[in-house]
Amino acid sequence: MAVASELAAVFAYIDRNRDGFLARLVDYVRHPSISAYNVGIKEVAELLVGMLTGLGFDTKLMATSGHPMVLARWDKAADAPTVLLYGHYDVQPPDPVEAWVSPPFEPTIRNGRVYARGVADNKGQHLAQILAIESHLAVQGRLPCNVILLLEGEEEVGSPHIAEFVRANRDLLKADFVVTADGQLHASGQPSIKFGSRGIVEFELRARHANRDVHSGNFGGVVPNPLWTLVQLLATMKNDRGEITIDGLNDDIVPPTPEEREAAARLPLDLAEIKRTLGLLRLDEPAERAYYDRLCFYPTLTINGLHGGYGGPGTKTVLPHEAIAKCDIRLVEAQNPADILAKVASHVRRHAPEVECLSHGPGMLPSKTPLTSPYAEPIRRAILAARGVEPLLYPAGFGSLPGYAFTKILGIPAFVVPYANADAANHAPNENLTLDCFFNGIRTGAALLDEIGRQQRPNLAI
Amino acid sequence: MAVASELAAVFAYIDRNRDGFLARLVDYVRHPSISAYNVGIKEVAELLVGMLTGLGFDTKLMATSGHPMVLARWDKAADAPTVLLYGHYDVQPPDPVEAWVSPPFEPTIRNGRVYARGVADNKGQHLAQILAIESHLAVQGRLPCNVILLLEGEEEVGSPHIAEFVRANRDLLKADFVVTADGQLHASGQPSIKFGSRGIVEFELRARHANRDVHSGNFGGVVPNPLWTLVQLLATMKNDRGEITIDGLNDDIVPPTPEEREAAARLPLDLAEIKRTLGLLRLDEPAERAYYDRLCFYPTLTINGLHGGYGGPGTKTVLPHEAIAKCDIRLVEAQNPADILAKVASHVRRHAPEVECLSHGPGMLPSKTPLTSPYAEPIRRAILAARGVEPLLYPAGFGSLPGYAFTKILGIPAFVVPYANADAANHAPNENLTLDCFFNGIRTGAALLDEIGRQQRPNLAI
Repeated sequence: MAVASELAAVFAYIDRNRDGFLARLVDYVRHPSISAYNVGIKEVAELLVGMLTGLGFDTKLMATSGHPMVLARWDKAADAPTVLLYGHYDVQPPDPVEAWVSPPFEPTIRNGRVYARGVADNKGQHLAQILAIESHLAVQGRLPCNVILLLEGEEEVGSPHIAEFVRANRDLLKADFVVTADGQLHASGQPSIKFGSRGIVEFELRARHANRDVHSGNFGGVVPNPLWTLVQLLATMKNDRGEITIDGLNDDIVPPTPEEREAAARLPLDLAEIKRTLGLLRLDEPAERAYYDRLCFYPTLTINGLHGGYGGPGTKTVLPHEAIAKCDIRLVEAQNPADILAKVASHVRRHAPEVECLSHGPGMLPSKTPLTSPYAEPIRRAILAARGVEPLLYPAGFGSLPGYAFTKILGIPAFVVPYANADAANHAPNENLTLDCFFNGIRTGAALLDEIGRQQRPNLAI
Repeated sequence: MAVASELAAVFAYIDRNRDGFLARLVDYVRHPSISAYNVGIKEVAELLVGMLTGLGFDTKLMATSGHPMVLARWDKAADAPTVLLYGHYDVQPPDPVEAWVSPPFEPTIRNGRVYARGVADNKGQHLAQILAIESHLAVQGRLPCNVILLLEGEEEVGSPHIAEFVRANRDLLKADFVVTADGQLHASGQPSIKFGSRGIVEFELRARHANRDVHSGNFGGVVPNPLWTLVQLLATMKNDRGEITIDGLNDDIVPPTPEEREAAARLPLDLAEIKRTLGLLRLDEPAERAYYDRLCFYPTLTINGLHGGYGGPGTKTVLPHEAIAKCDIRLVEAQNPADILAKVASHVRRHAPEVECLSHGPGMLPSKTPLTSPYAEPIRRAILAARGVEPLLYPAGFGSLPGYAFTKILGIPAFVVPYANADAANHAPNENLTLDCFFNGIRTGAALLDEIGRQQRPNLAI
């Protein structure tokens, strides 16, 4: 397809600078920035401040109650729209380190991929956006649109302060829409646009009866068993049809629009391949619910772990005194984590008042951007220009990103455009980013700025 | 109370020989005989053969498909009844060894107790019976009744061969009734007679779906969760009223007789003390079911352990690929382990056909002896003579002993008469037997032989 000559020049610049850009990526991911352990956070944040100040951005390291935000603004594009590019500079802990082929913070290039913790999630992706900006500036001395870069240092620990930060800094974050480069391409290699994210709450159920384990013959049927308590409580929370049965849980769900249903139905699906890869005999219930509908439009209640009593070889006729279940619920528009946690707690009080229900953090709201948003079209065209492939349109991302801070607090549409390969191994040993994905990410970022620059600022709310 | 002069002489002999008998106990429990690890079994079996041969018993070490049985007979009491004294010379593994104050096989006397693995369960108890025999022989040159001693080497691994052994050796085991000295006195120190034992089956439920753990956001609601599978399966097996709901499980239960109900109701019960000791806020359901009825007359289904997914600190948004539950069911007369396992397996096939149901061994049948058995009275009188206290009468023992081999295969009544202190710590670190319990055990054993010798052999079936 024809690419405007300005963008073609930027693409050519990116091509000429592949080696230098790759060296920049290797250098960036060499620095650990593990939010959970508060390792390297300050160093990497300051490195970003230096990098963005060097590009002529008005850059600040802004304190929060947790790790700081890097906020950088370029606003010299007169009447062009303003895009907010969100990313996160913190990374997951690298454990188990022994499972890495090369050390997690000694980036290594093998098989056309860079292996390092954070290279896909999310350093390689926002660095691609920064290098796209740098390429535009190098070629044209200016950007086609206004850009705000917001790089968070706490995404991997649940973005606990982004809402208060966004609320307190509305003026500095005044943008027309948000694009987050995060997540992965479809397994087929196809790019995508995700029109929001599911939210999440995480909680723990603790049942305890006796003050010690006792003998099942002498006390079975007399001393309450915390495993039975949890089994019977959990069985009231989801039925064997796969439906969540926590009272009121579905009250606030906004049903998908016909366009969203159609978009989900259009997503490519190779069920046989999914089953083969994961060794599945069947999908979860409810069987009649379409694959992508489950991931886009419904909350899910997952038991992440349940432990109590004897777990060694053979048998032990013990009646345990404590059992713990850890769960998450993925939320869809317009469920609210605080409300959902309150409903879970109330359900637990009603069905098993002895069980302790602990929430793990405030959770995350879902976010949703209409498929009809006028900003979807320039993003689609940018992806097509950069990759020569039409993006898939996801009515929602399956995982949880803090996009709600933009859609719900700033009231602007937010999109997720993944740059990384489907097998990037985020959060796992041997995280990696293919060189193709990295360079295509820079091209996509460059095309995006170009397309946005061609827009009149539409006058609309989300 | 008045004690017949022959028995008085035996009691006096026992009193004079306390130091020697205690040294014999210390020497006996110094030898490990851990059936699970096949450590010391042969040595201890041969030690017993030597000891019993030395007493003039016709003694054999008899092979089984597992560890050997020690069988010793004394049959010179003409028309007096024959009592079969059953015990087991194997012991539990001593793990965790580091939790012992003194090493498990270096018997140590502290606070009026001998501490050693097996001292209560069961070596100290059957040694007390042997020393009672020895005392009768020393004082009178004969025994008041015929005695068969059967000492098993596999009780701690579920007595897998006792049924086939008893079936194959009916003639050698021809006795009028069985007394097993095993278990503990009531917490108040009161002695007891137990008219049987509950049976047991043990099984494991394994659910597995995907071939690896997956991300709860990307696969929750799509990939089946083995923890939900187990939760929903288990919830069909026992309801929140505490009733087992496995189809047909209660079919063969023989309801207790009015005498048995009355005996259970007469057992001393200090619920406040039990709750205080175990830190309980309430008993298990069904709330209206009497405490001892639960332990004597009902099967119980205990989840011994349930494990799957993340169990570390904080949270992990994982959907696990495997979960395992280990369970036991205590059986009451006339439930049959093979039949119960088949019913469990059939229930699992019907409700969760993907779940694997593995049985752990053949289990154990329950046994029951009528409270009206004519042998109950001499046992009661013997306990009264030896201890000066009336025994409590338990319609059934709560735990599982292989008494069924006698009641169901030989067709003779079987009684359990515990000699050990309530805090003997069987199967746990710092297992111990008080010296009082040991010497009272010898006295009880001696009185029992005396009382039996006064009986005419009644001509009755169980």
